[in-house]
Amino acid sequence: MRRKIQRLTPEDYAKGILQGNRYMLSRAITLIESKRSQDQDLAYQVFEKILPYTGNSVRIGITGVPGVGKSSFIESFGKMLTNKGLKVAVLAIDPSSQRTGGSIMGDKTRMESLSNDPLAYVRPSPAGAALGGVARMTSECILLCEATGFEVIIVETVGVGQSEIEVRNMTDFFLLLMLAGAGDELQGIKKGIMENADLLAINKADGDNQMKARQARVVYQKALHWFPLSDSGLPVKVVTCSALENRGLENIFKVIQNFKEKTQENGRFQARRQSQNTYRMHRTIKAELERRFYEHPEIRQALTEKEQQAQVGELHAVNVARELLNLYEQK
Amino acid sequence: MRRKIQRLTPEDYAKGILQGNRYMLSRAITLIESKRSQDQDLAYQVFEKILPYTGNSVRIGITGVPGVGKSSFIESFGKMLTNKGLKVAVLAIDPSSQRTGGSIMGDKTRMESLSNDPLAYVRPSPAGAALGGVARMTSECILLCEATGFEVIIVETVGVGQSEIEVRNMTDFFLLLMLAGAGDELQGIKKGIMENADLLAINKADGDNQMKARQARVVYQKALHWFPLSDSGLPVKVVTCSALENRGLENIFKVIQNFKEKTQENGRFQARRQSQNTYRMHRTIKAELERRFYEHPEIRQALTEKEQQAQVGELHAVNVARELLNLYEQK
Repeated sequence: MRRKIQRLTPEDYAKGILQGNRYMLSRAITLIESKRSQDQDLAYQVFEKILPYTGNSVRIGITGVPGVGKSSFIESFGKMLTNKGLKVAVLAIDPSSQRTGGSIMGDKTRMESLSNDPLAYVRPSPAGAALGGVARMTSECILLCEATGFEVIIVETVGVGQSEIEVRNMTDFFLLLMLAGAGDELQGIKKGIMENADLLAINKADGDNQMKARQARVVYQKALHWFPLSDSGLPVKVVTCSALENRGLENIFKVIQNFKEKTQENGRFQARRQSQNTYRMHRTIKAELERRFYEHPEIRQALTEKEQQAQVGELHAVNVARELLNLYEQK
Repeated sequence: MRRKIQRLTPEDYAKGILQGNRYMLSRAITLIESKRSQDQDLAYQVFEKILPYTGNSVRIGITGVPGVGKSSFIESFGKMLTNKGLKVAVLAIDPSSQRTGGSIMGDKTRMESLSNDPLAYVRPSPAGAALGGVARMTSECILLCEATGFEVIIVETVGVGQSEIEVRNMTDFFLLLMLAGAGDELQGIKKGIMENADLLAINKADGDNQMKARQARVVYQKALHWFPLSDSGLPVKVVTCSALENRGLENIFKVIQNFKEKTQENGRFQARRQSQNTYRMHRTIKAELERRFYEHPEIRQALTEKEQQAQVGELHAVNVARELLNLYEQK
């Protein structure tokens, strides 16, 4: 016989989270990830209660192409932070449904040491979840982690376009990991990521690779002059590091701390968070308008036939759209 | 006293258009471009009537960075086609509001010779119109031009990201104009346009530039191997041309004709148009859902205050979104 988990009130959740209870944090995240509207309603009641206790962290987005060593970097970087006594949460966005693929975030062997650290909390995305959905949840997970008392929130994303923009839009500091090597240089430029990074770190600057990494640092630093100034008002730096040999990680954290301090002074820190809130609001409205439309029983029933008529050109696509919209409004 | 233009019925429009009356075509396009819902309703009644008479053209999208010579190319290419007795319509998307700027499409001196050609019809976009809006109209303008009897429809767009994707999504054949020169090569790759082109044409292959153009042709042809195969099932070619000296234009038209023939045989021609219809339908639904939401009087009234609350973090962005959506649904 399966034991039923007791249904908690918004107060129960909020109290547990604010006491730093990770079990309660995990249950709240599960609530957020649930597709049941009952769960969603409950989740947003929890948010009303915890919101005043959020915001007190530095939110770091980390990206880079597959193979750049994101997981090892986060493991080493996270351990360095917990060794300082800092509470670190790691959230991962895995758009595994994207055509370029990506690593399997559910993999138990990843970040094993950090996962077992009492000061750290590692939460991978559910595999196969829709990109928009995962990003939506991740933004909420950041707030839940902050209310639980985590001081550094790391959001990881694999190097594919849309998910990077999403992560950029929910973090204070965006770190692009790169490798020394000609092909990779093109990658970074091609994908338009460099324009959004607050720091470029050339990883795997160890062993025979050190010289190449230092050379690449110079090349990237020059390339950055082609791009418009960051909205942070601070110059974008390029550094080298080695997650394997634990080198350069302290320096990266110093850059981040300095960035936070300076952008709090010049107001860009608050400005970014505020514009992220507005973006988040409009994005939710758009996503929700579409969801409500496409999940409406009458639309679901009519859609296949209408789509077919538009597709083969029996009716004009826009006329079909207008018919469906009118049907929806008369519901 | 201003003379009032007589209001026509959908039948008047359809009849005029199907008789090849350009004045009626222009008036129908004006109708489509109107923001009044009365005009829009009328326009879509016209579409129901003309739809069976559309589709009998080859729809060519043309793009390239500013300075590549798009207007001169279209002028020369269009004249070459009308000299064969073909009826040619040119539609232009000008996202002049984009930050990268772009040429002014309303410029009367552009394509002067083609504009005065009785077999040609040149219609620039209204300056400053919203990108999505222009693209929406352009797609409808193609259908109106086809019903009026135009056999080749050329849609021009300046080299900025989103408008290119839109034009790609409403044409049968996508031509990327390029120049010989190192910087430009990077441009094409960077913007991800090369992946969507059906043909690359290196323009200005004239005078001292001929050798450089031929060399660039080889470089681009090699570069194309890095990209996945086109969904047309046909290899993407690179050619050189000179709009100034009228060279290579016949060849480009031959490539297009051959492309149409082959993709009609392998089914990709119809498949592209069908998926474009579906895309168009869903895109219209999304745009219209948003428009109806944001233009609703109660939402307009509540939005500024609510946006402010979300922005400063007084309320959670998602909770604000949900509040507004509930307000909208109860209207």
